[in-house]
Amino acid sequence: MIRLHGLEVSGNTYKIKLLLNLLNIKYEFIPLDIKNKQHKSEAFLKLNPRGEFPVLEDGSLIVWDSQAILIYLAKQYGTQENNHWYPDNAPAIAHITQWLTVANGEIFLTLGKARAMLKFGYAGDLELAQKRGIKILQWIDQHLKDRNWLATEQPSIADITCYPYIALCEEGDISLSHYPAIHRWFKRIQNINGYVSMPGIKRE
Amino acid sequence: MIRLHGLEVSGNTYKIKLLLNLLNIKYEFIPLDIKNKQHKSEAFLKLNPRGEFPVLEDGSLIVWDSQAILIYLAKQYGTQENNHWYPDNAPAIAHITQWLTVANGEIFLTLGKARAMLKFGYAGDLELAQKRGIKILQWIDQHLKDRNWLATEQPSIADITCYPYIALCEEGDISLSHYPAIHRWFKRIQNINGYVSMPGIKRE
Repeated sequence: MIRLHGLEVSGNTYKIKLLLNLLNIKYEFIPLDIKNKQHKSEAFLKLNPRGEFPVLEDGSLIVWDSQAILIYLAKQYGTQENNHWYPDNAPAIAHITQWLTVANGEIFLTLGKARAMLKFGYAGDLELAQKRGIKILQWIDQHLKDRNWLATEQPSIADITCYPYIALCEEGDISLSHYPAIHRWFKRIQNINGYVSMPGIKRE
Repeated sequence: MIRLHGLEVSGNTYKIKLLLNLLNIKYEFIPLDIKNKQHKSEAFLKLNPRGEFPVLEDGSLIVWDSQAILIYLAKQYGTQENNHWYPDNAPAIAHITQWLTVANGEIFLTLGKARAMLKFGYAGDLELAQKRGIKILQWIDQHLKDRNWLATEQPSIADITCYPYIALCEEGDISLSHYPAIHRWFKRIQNINGYVSMPGIKRE
């Protein structure tokens, strides 16, 4: 049985839920009690020494870090029909990995942080996060102008990992009004069979 | 012909050089003139819209982001004998990816930043970077206590990507005296056939 430890309102947790659903994998969701710092408890640190979520358990295998979990699920449970999530092809994987890095870097550290400041009261320079976030949105909108998907010809885990914190960015008071290519991409993702949403993400 | 754009004193550039050498791949190194901000020039932004290095060109394929380049090279040029750098096995890849994230996150943002502040005059909170960096070193030393390699039973790109900014951390005035398991790991890496060093990394 697959068990996913995470938080309902976490975009990084949602990435995993989304892929689990798209791959039609049954799993048990175990919500963390972060008010009581369960993710820093001794029991949880045995699962993930970084004290962060999400964490996936697949039998005796434990995987932390959302990028690692996405790659693991796509590789382990992808069939011939849906191996496009993480294809067995070096140039495709190279382009997917680029966007995994952007998701953890530019996107999370601007759009994700602005949201965390406004929604959860995290400390930080909101104006700077918003200003940098707008630059990322402009870049990604331009990148998607003549493309259906971020990295390859089909949807991949690059799209799954970049989608949440872009789709949630208005919770960080960053407008999504000016990016038509991003909205077309949202719609494409939301139309994939098995798509599930999370609190805060609107339907196009 | 493979062309690598980067900087001699950059740990992220060195990761790629190291793997190219370990895989015995011939390449042309193109050093960037960062004093004149060549990495922000129009020509370079066509290679990498992020304006960062390293960037790899393999014929018409362009790959930016050091993690993406490592995966690409290992996957594209790994043979049956040396596919251990990025094996075709979901649990192994999951564990490798975890360390790719740690390299870009904890390691680069603490040890790498402290070095950048002292060596290149970058702005930032040196004391905080050093304090957090020591915690990472303690964690990794503990992790390597009963293991030969970070992620799997053989050397992988997890080791390649984490090695440089750990091995360079004394340039950020963070002592490496207290981590015997890390030193044993350094020695193992340095003994791999094809190993090359970079300025600032001592031989064990």
